[in-house]
Amino acid sequence: MTGSVREALSEPVPEATLSRVQTVMRAIEDRIEGRALGPGARLPSVRAFAESMGVSKSTVVEAYDRLAARGAIVSRPGSGFFVAARPEPLSLAAIGPRLDRAVDPVWITRQSLEAGPDSLRPGCGWLPPDWLPEEDLRRALRHVARQSDAVMFYDTPQGHAPLRQQLALRLTERGIRAHPDQLVLADSVTQALDLIIRFLAEPGDTVLLDDPCYFSFQALARAHRLRMVGVPFGPEGPDLAAFEQALIEHKPRFYITNSGLQNPTGATLSPVVVHRMLRLAEMHGTLIVEDDAYADFEPEPGPRLAGFDGLDRVIHVGGFSKTLSTGARVGAIALRSDWVERLVDLKLAVSLSDNHLTAATVHRFLAEGSYRHHLDALRTRLADARGMVVRRLAQAGLSVPFVPSAGMFLWTRLPEGLDAVDVSRRALARGVVLAPGNVFSISQGAASFLRFNVAQCASPRVFSELSRAMEG
Amino acid sequence: MTGSVREALSEPVPEATLSRVQTVMRAIEDRIEGRALGPGARLPSVRAFAESMGVSKSTVVEAYDRLAARGAIVSRPGSGFFVAARPEPLSLAAIGPRLDRAVDPVWITRQSLEAGPDSLRPGCGWLPPDWLPEEDLRRALRHVARQSDAVMFYDTPQGHAPLRQQLALRLTERGIRAHPDQLVLADSVTQALDLIIRFLAEPGDTVLLDDPCYFSFQALARAHRLRMVGVPFGPEGPDLAAFEQALIEHKPRFYITNSGLQNPTGATLSPVVVHRMLRLAEMHGTLIVEDDAYADFEPEPGPRLAGFDGLDRVIHVGGFSKTLSTGARVGAIALRSDWVERLVDLKLAVSLSDNHLTAATVHRFLAEGSYRHHLDALRTRLADARGMVVRRLAQAGLSVPFVPSAGMFLWTRLPEGLDAVDVSRRALARGVVLAPGNVFSISQGAASFLRFNVAQCASPRVFSELSRAMEG
Repeated sequence: MTGSVREALSEPVPEATLSRVQTVMRAIEDRIEGRALGPGARLPSVRAFAESMGVSKSTVVEAYDRLAARGAIVSRPGSGFFVAARPEPLSLAAIGPRLDRAVDPVWITRQSLEAGPDSLRPGCGWLPPDWLPEEDLRRALRHVARQSDAVMFYDTPQGHAPLRQQLALRLTERGIRAHPDQLVLADSVTQALDLIIRFLAEPGDTVLLDDPCYFSFQALARAHRLRMVGVPFGPEGPDLAAFEQALIEHKPRFYITNSGLQNPTGATLSPVVVHRMLRLAEMHGTLIVEDDAYADFEPEPGPRLAGFDGLDRVIHVGGFSKTLSTGARVGAIALRSDWVERLVDLKLAVSLSDNHLTAATVHRFLAEGSYRHHLDALRTRLADARGMVVRRLAQAGLSVPFVPSAGMFLWTRLPEGLDAVDVSRRALARGVVLAPGNVFSISQGAASFLRFNVAQCASPRVFSELSRAMEG
Repeated sequence: MTGSVREALSEPVPEATLSRVQTVMRAIEDRIEGRALGPGARLPSVRAFAESMGVSKSTVVEAYDRLAARGAIVSRPGSGFFVAARPEPLSLAAIGPRLDRAVDPVWITRQSLEAGPDSLRPGCGWLPPDWLPEEDLRRALRHVARQSDAVMFYDTPQGHAPLRQQLALRLTERGIRAHPDQLVLADSVTQALDLIIRFLAEPGDTVLLDDPCYFSFQALARAHRLRMVGVPFGPEGPDLAAFEQALIEHKPRFYITNSGLQNPTGATLSPVVVHRMLRLAEMHGTLIVEDDAYADFEPEPGPRLAGFDGLDRVIHVGGFSKTLSTGARVGAIALRSDWVERLVDLKLAVSLSDNHLTAATVHRFLAEGSYRHHLDALRTRLADARGMVVRRLAQAGLSVPFVPSAGMFLWTRLPEGLDAVDVSRRALARGVVLAPGNVFSISQGAASFLRFNVAQCASPRVFSELSRAMEG
């Protein structure tokens, strides 16, 4: 235990030892990041840690000295090593099981956002530029720039009243009765979900998620330190027996799902499934958060949990990022009247106000009436693309177990023996962002799946690069 | 224990009993909202609860029956009363001590946001419309509407790169060296603080706050279930002996403060105080979050914690809501390079992206160069208003123990014997929003103080209504 920092830095260390040293360092860093070792806490003794890690004492001494050199821990001669007093901030990656970067939800989001303009993104979750109503949106924005107070001031606590009125009408068309006073706006669907999770759960609570599900649900649950329990999800929706079993066994605070055009499978629930899910949720005292971000892709509105439930135990979230623009984001929460004031209190505390400018711009856009035409054209274009992509994927050797009725996603299976993470890594090296199935799977049981966005597959290079990546 | 719901609803109850029943109901509701009684939990027995509340058993039976009638609890004959299975969402008001609405930070925010166009808002925390550079901002927005991709797409994970470059330069002018890669953008200063608190603290951790301090810090700490410890704050800054004592006694995760033009006192720290605070923070292993939202009011930049510290243990937050517009909000976080990736991971998880449109608009506005002229004019106008308001308040009988060098706030004291909450209630009834001192005070030790915004005091009616409210 006498090796000093100076010695550790100057003495050469053989290569084989080095990797063992790094393993020990990583183990200590994990405990510090995960807060198992807080600021000022004493590290395990060199002897004990060497035994528990199955390495030599000198390896542990080397690792501790290097961590001390970095300032992560401090040595107090005679009494051992201690975590440095500067508290370490949260590391999302250190909450829960450590994930391979390739299946880390946050990393995939980062890849999609950072991909250069020349890269291909068949795995990404949004539409390409030329699929969006850019001119109409710019016109709405110019109007707001000329005429609206939204440029200058905070909006009201619940969010832009004219937009809430429009949204209440749109919900009614989908069978969800919500008074404008039951709507609360947030800066995006993701931020709306974040607010709702704070509203419903505390760290350590359990949440039910679909397996597979939209990977941001997992990232949010991780950030909130929730326990995640997966419910197998297929073309018919969640496995209801497994859903009930999970309700009984884990007593989740809430279940979060997409009832229409689920991400990644594209499945839409039937009325009977919606009805049964609600009955089970009621029997077992669970709330449901329904993320309805894909609703506007549907030609005919399908059944919705919030609609059947009458906003009793379901909180509904919608937005426009998928079909209008990701630059001007709005999230709309519909919930029980008697919960509105409390949710707004929480919103005021953590954000003070949502973005007035964006809300007014989306309102103006919707008021102009061109959105319906855009959606009609978009649905047709997606249907055409879907047909083409299904054919091309089949030629490449992938199978599509279920073809959704609408939307942009296809949940596809690679030929036997191929791992989606391997294929995605090879594709990424050639500038193609794929979405490997296990990013969506809590059980990591979707190793042979890939999610495709049919709108991002116009270039024939998507399929040639895919075939190349599959060849290895 | 046999009184049924039906009986409880039909039997008339004497008035005196009724208020006792309501007290018991409120006590149970508090425990349910605060999660001391979770969904499905058994309520205390009627006998035990009657004893502990000092009421008769029939009062408790009445209260339980009424709660059952509302669906908050359920009766299971033979085994007692249980909290209903539908989980209750968070009630911010139920975290920590219950606050009078008049000194509840969230409620004050709500009042200021909801006040009609005709009401006077000398207590509110922002500038009136005609003090802001509306035409210049609209011009910037029109430019973005014509030319920028920001209307349509997500921004990069760290936030708008051109804006981060501008902001890094502005920070340098204030003595804070930060590379653009050390900046992370959020949708507002409040949301930036919310993100940082999640980054640094877990529920149950302790945070140090100034007493008095900006009330949103308290609302945020409450939402995060942090323990709050106050440090007395005066014209020289925090009481350093009390600061050290709190560091030793409470081992806070972090201290949050404004080092320039503190809200509500208007105090700016001297170099020696900044130096000593940093030394104490270092000695005791605490981080500092510096909210610098008022920096642009200063004619000459004062010393900053982040500047002296070199972004080692200080995380710095700035924005433009106070001096540019509250409709187009941006929050900018400057922090240690080695923490950036982790913070961005968290940001991606909980918000996916900040508002591209707003960031691009603020960038364009700053690039046009008129902001400096606006700030010059604003500072002069504020100095004039400050002089006038100090005189008028003195005429009304209030004292101003300290007149800040810049900014919009005055921290003033009512004459002996007057309570600021009483005065504020009477003023609100006549359409005047005041800011009573205890909204800013964790110890509730500022009962005779009021915060004035000198920019919101142009109407002589502010002072006549104030005098009337002081008369009772």
